[in-house]
Amino acid sequence: MLVEGVHFDLSYSPLKHLGYKAAVVNFSDIYAMNGQVKQITVSVALSNRFSLEAVEELYSGIVLACQIYGVDLVGGDTVSSNSGLIIGITAIGEAQKEEVVYRNGAKDKELLVVTGDLGAAYMGLQILEREKAVFRSDPNIQPDLEGNDYILERQLKPEARKDMIELLQKLNVKPTSMIDVSDGLASEVLHLCKSSGLGCQLFGEKIPIDPTVMNAAEDFNLDPTTCALNGGEDYELLFTVQQSDYDRLKANPNFTFIGHMSEGSSAQLVTKSGQSVELTAQGWDAFLHK
Amino acid sequence: MLVEGVHFDLSYSPLKHLGYKAAVVNFSDIYAMNGQVKQITVSVALSNRFSLEAVEELYSGIVLACQIYGVDLVGGDTVSSNSGLIIGITAIGEAQKEEVVYRNGAKDKELLVVTGDLGAAYMGLQILEREKAVFRSDPNIQPDLEGNDYILERQLKPEARKDMIELLQKLNVKPTSMIDVSDGLASEVLHLCKSSGLGCQLFGEKIPIDPTVMNAAEDFNLDPTTCALNGGEDYELLFTVQQSDYDRLKANPNFTFIGHMSEGSSAQLVTKSGQSVELTAQGWDAFLHK
Repeated sequence: MLVEGVHFDLSYSPLKHLGYKAAVVNFSDIYAMNGQVKQITVSVALSNRFSLEAVEELYSGIVLACQIYGVDLVGGDTVSSNSGLIIGITAIGEAQKEEVVYRNGAKDKELLVVTGDLGAAYMGLQILEREKAVFRSDPNIQPDLEGNDYILERQLKPEARKDMIELLQKLNVKPTSMIDVSDGLASEVLHLCKSSGLGCQLFGEKIPIDPTVMNAAEDFNLDPTTCALNGGEDYELLFTVQQSDYDRLKANPNFTFIGHMSEGSSAQLVTKSGQSVELTAQGWDAFLHK
Repeated sequence: MLVEGVHFDLSYSPLKHLGYKAAVVNFSDIYAMNGQVKQITVSVALSNRFSLEAVEELYSGIVLACQIYGVDLVGGDTVSSNSGLIIGITAIGEAQKEEVVYRNGAKDKELLVVTGDLGAAYMGLQILEREKAVFRSDPNIQPDLEGNDYILERQLKPEARKDMIELLQKLNVKPTSMIDVSDGLASEVLHLCKSSGLGCQLFGEKIPIDPTVMNAAEDFNLDPTTCALNGGEDYELLFTVQQSDYDRLKANPNFTFIGHMSEGSSAQLVTKSGQSVELTAQGWDAFLHK
């Protein structure tokens, strides 16, 4: 469920993008269990400040996502809201029982892998929020979004990693545990650790970060690793594999090994200098004010 | 999707009842297609004015409904809301392909049947709104709800007619079209007519109304038939059957024959005096101010 003012801001989220994103983030949850998305239902609550055209824009984004990912839109509901826009999407998926991957299947010494790169969606949000603040202070100033296409698209129109699920099958690698990165890498690593009853060693400098994210983070005087750990909304897949699968994945640019599981319950972040600190899933505010 | 302030009022809806109702109204949609409800997902958006205990109350009602109707609660989401409570439930059902009943299967001269009785949920709402207004004007006055248990329960804790689906199967009667009465009988009759490309004759005096609803309507100076036609939230089943099924249903107190389908597109309400008026699905306000 996505709530206006909490999960999205219509002042910089085009409605079609919003519809696309709302669908895709639900698909992501099913791919993260190694399933295929089959159907969605869409419920929308809205007030009379939304025109018919606005609602059609929203649905056109949802329908586009369904077409691209091969999903049927099979039902839903449209109701009144006394305030903002609320979008509720339920995705229904399918998988062979023996193919389903849960969060609790990781074993000691297995390897932690992540797809794609992290932190971009969060940096995109920072840029949008900055330009919104500038626009508010002076509506004559045009938003300065140049050179940030990748970052902005990661925030406004993310993709779910159906392609990675298919690639893993092709490579004959079945993750032992898996989750999608919606709340930030740190939070998701801790979910896998807790569910599997293990700890881990996560190597900060191994975390894949796009150069444009590095640059943007510098502009904002933020640590890019911290953005990747706590930013969220990347919708990449985080998973564990057996050590014997290392060779099958190591040369593939889509996958990055970022650590390994360990006995006990302590999740350690190992910094560049070799220091270990306890990994915590902090809200962004806690990080900024440390 | 149920939105606080639009679909429910927490000043008189206990959270457990609300959870129960939120689940049941979704089950009702699936029974209305002659299916069995198998699973639901529950998403809740709420603000920090709700305590953990309040959320547990809400879920306890949902879980109770699941237990009674034999449904699995398989997933969902809990998110922040910046204002009221929003409940989004998706129900997943199952039916043999040849058993599914749609809205568009009615044929000319088939009989219109409704289960149970109508108008009670609407009268319950009137009583609750009246007592709320009294309480607001003087908080020392205790709400006067005596003698209205049935009516209040129909509003606050409705049931879905799974039992009627099972009874029809036992009687070997398969409806040709069906819908549940959520928006009021008039609106639902018009849905069946439009979907099936037919008109109908609906006999006002045949509409089943409980004596307590008659009494309450009198107190409010309302026409009980109008309450039944436009009130809504009864969650009874409205369906059409072939004339050859008449004998199988006629003696059963659960079913009432209220009219028949006809050629053309005109849906006529036949009054006690034998006059015909065009059936319209009006909002309640339009009726009150005629």
